[in-house]
Amino acid sequence: MDFNITILGSNSAAPAHGRNQTSQVVTWGSYTFLLDCGESTQHQLRKYKIKYFKINHIFISHLHGDHYLGLMGLIATYHLNNRKHPLHIFGPNGLDEIITIQLKYSGTILKFPLIFHPTLHSEKIKLLELGDLEVWSFPLKHRIPCTGFSFEEKTGRVKLNKELIIKNKPGIEAIRTLLRGQDVLDMTGRVLYQAKDYCEIKVPRKYAFCSDTIYDPELPQYIREMDILYHESTFMEAEKDRAKLTRHSTTKEAAAIALASKAKNLLLGHYSVRYADLTPLLEEARETFPNSFLSEEGTTYRIK
Amino acid sequence: MDFNITILGSNSAAPAHGRNQTSQVVTWGSYTFLLDCGESTQHQLRKYKIKYFKINHIFISHLHGDHYLGLMGLIATYHLNNRKHPLHIFGPNGLDEIITIQLKYSGTILKFPLIFHPTLHSEKIKLLELGDLEVWSFPLKHRIPCTGFSFEEKTGRVKLNKELIIKNKPGIEAIRTLLRGQDVLDMTGRVLYQAKDYCEIKVPRKYAFCSDTIYDPELPQYIREMDILYHESTFMEAEKDRAKLTRHSTTKEAAAIALASKAKNLLLGHYSVRYADLTPLLEEARETFPNSFLSEEGTTYRIK
Repeated sequence: MDFNITILGSNSAAPAHGRNQTSQVVTWGSYTFLLDCGESTQHQLRKYKIKYFKINHIFISHLHGDHYLGLMGLIATYHLNNRKHPLHIFGPNGLDEIITIQLKYSGTILKFPLIFHPTLHSEKIKLLELGDLEVWSFPLKHRIPCTGFSFEEKTGRVKLNKELIIKNKPGIEAIRTLLRGQDVLDMTGRVLYQAKDYCEIKVPRKYAFCSDTIYDPELPQYIREMDILYHESTFMEAEKDRAKLTRHSTTKEAAAIALASKAKNLLLGHYSVRYADLTPLLEEARETFPNSFLSEEGTTYRIK
Repeated sequence: MDFNITILGSNSAAPAHGRNQTSQVVTWGSYTFLLDCGESTQHQLRKYKIKYFKINHIFISHLHGDHYLGLMGLIATYHLNNRKHPLHIFGPNGLDEIITIQLKYSGTILKFPLIFHPTLHSEKIKLLELGDLEVWSFPLKHRIPCTGFSFEEKTGRVKLNKELIIKNKPGIEAIRTLLRGQDVLDMTGRVLYQAKDYCEIKVPRKYAFCSDTIYDPELPQYIREMDILYHESTFMEAEKDRAKLTRHSTTKEAAAIALASKAKNLLLGHYSVRYADLTPLLEEARETFPNSFLSEEGTTYRIK
């Protein structure tokens, strides 16, 4: 089952250097999720050929414009294209008011149900459970209420040993039993097929998205052992004071969080307009955390 | 003095076929005005190298998303770039509330004065006078309150006859008198320089912008003899019923308004997503009004 993150925007504050503002698409199996929705996200969705009518859940981290100003346009496009199925929006208190007032003045009665779920930024909270996937919000420390989001598999996926299946041909019921991790017994209680022979249990996969935050040593408790950790890195270490003042992070700080939380990979992003070339940011992060990568628009990062 | 219109977006409803939503820049001498501000207008301003810090007046026709959803992003960019000089926004009642609520939830105290001027859609109203230029709003008939805007020179510009000036060398005071259209006399009352010899009075220039409107036979009274009339032409004549239903216009209807109002040139725009190729729209308009042109993104139309 695919578990992918596609970057639609990687810049902070304002668009620059051909980089758009924050937005990401997470796909998990047949599900498609949108994380933040900076201005022009609907343009980016088209540009990168995302099937955006499959998005039923949108997660907004906070109400700075570069993280949500594309939302009304996307809602309007869904409306104009006769969307019928519900759209769930998770975001801070106030976003519902912002949406409602704009629908009111545009005289729009939406053709689809829009369900707003306010996020809280006090603790880690489970927002959603879809089969084996859980989506959580957790507090980030920024200038206004802000949460990150994590996508976490509950159990490991089970991978069947195809060779043994072909060789011994257990029936479909037996395979279902094996997939549940149970041995298959005959009527006398004798073991016919052992689950450990037929199935390999994979480690549950996890992705966390930390949009805007000051360096926060308390953060790792919420984002332990992510396969990919996206952590904002607005500035380089030379701008550490500015990062603190604006409640953002440096590349080194993002790398320190990745290290402390035992992430497998770190994805940098939310780059300041001042950086045209991002290579120095990557190099700086890799000094602390070698498995650092730049998030780049239009690129898909796969969790295997 | 230049009087130009640059198209930033020409599409209706949603972006498509590489066409953005409605926005135009009008420049008159040293002034730069923004007309409507669909999503991604700040991207378009950058793309077409408009000096957008020179914009002090923004005019929003109505509160459908495709005409204003880029406004908050532009305001945010001005704020982040430490704009200090006032920004005047003219638009329908409600736009102030939409702006204010978003500033509130983003925790933003703007670094520059934002002055909101509500528009009324009952009659033609003068909004602004800047030297010889007047900016007016006038009612359009759409699904929600909507106004057009016109930019009209009060008097004709005076063009000096350079050859006569060089030959006879009137002093600076005499030239000022001639520029006011008055003859220059000596102390005895004898005519030294005749204004009609030294000055040519040009016809005042005018541009009108009719963003979204049903075909309205009452409209020409507000937009007489425009050098360029922009009139929406969302649909072709074959979709006349749909135009009526959605309170939009067809190419033929736009052309009929141009004819009735004695426009010199008609600029078509606000094209429906259904038209990838716009040539048929142009051809249809030209059957009624030969001086019809397609508004095309990035193109500047000059009033001479």
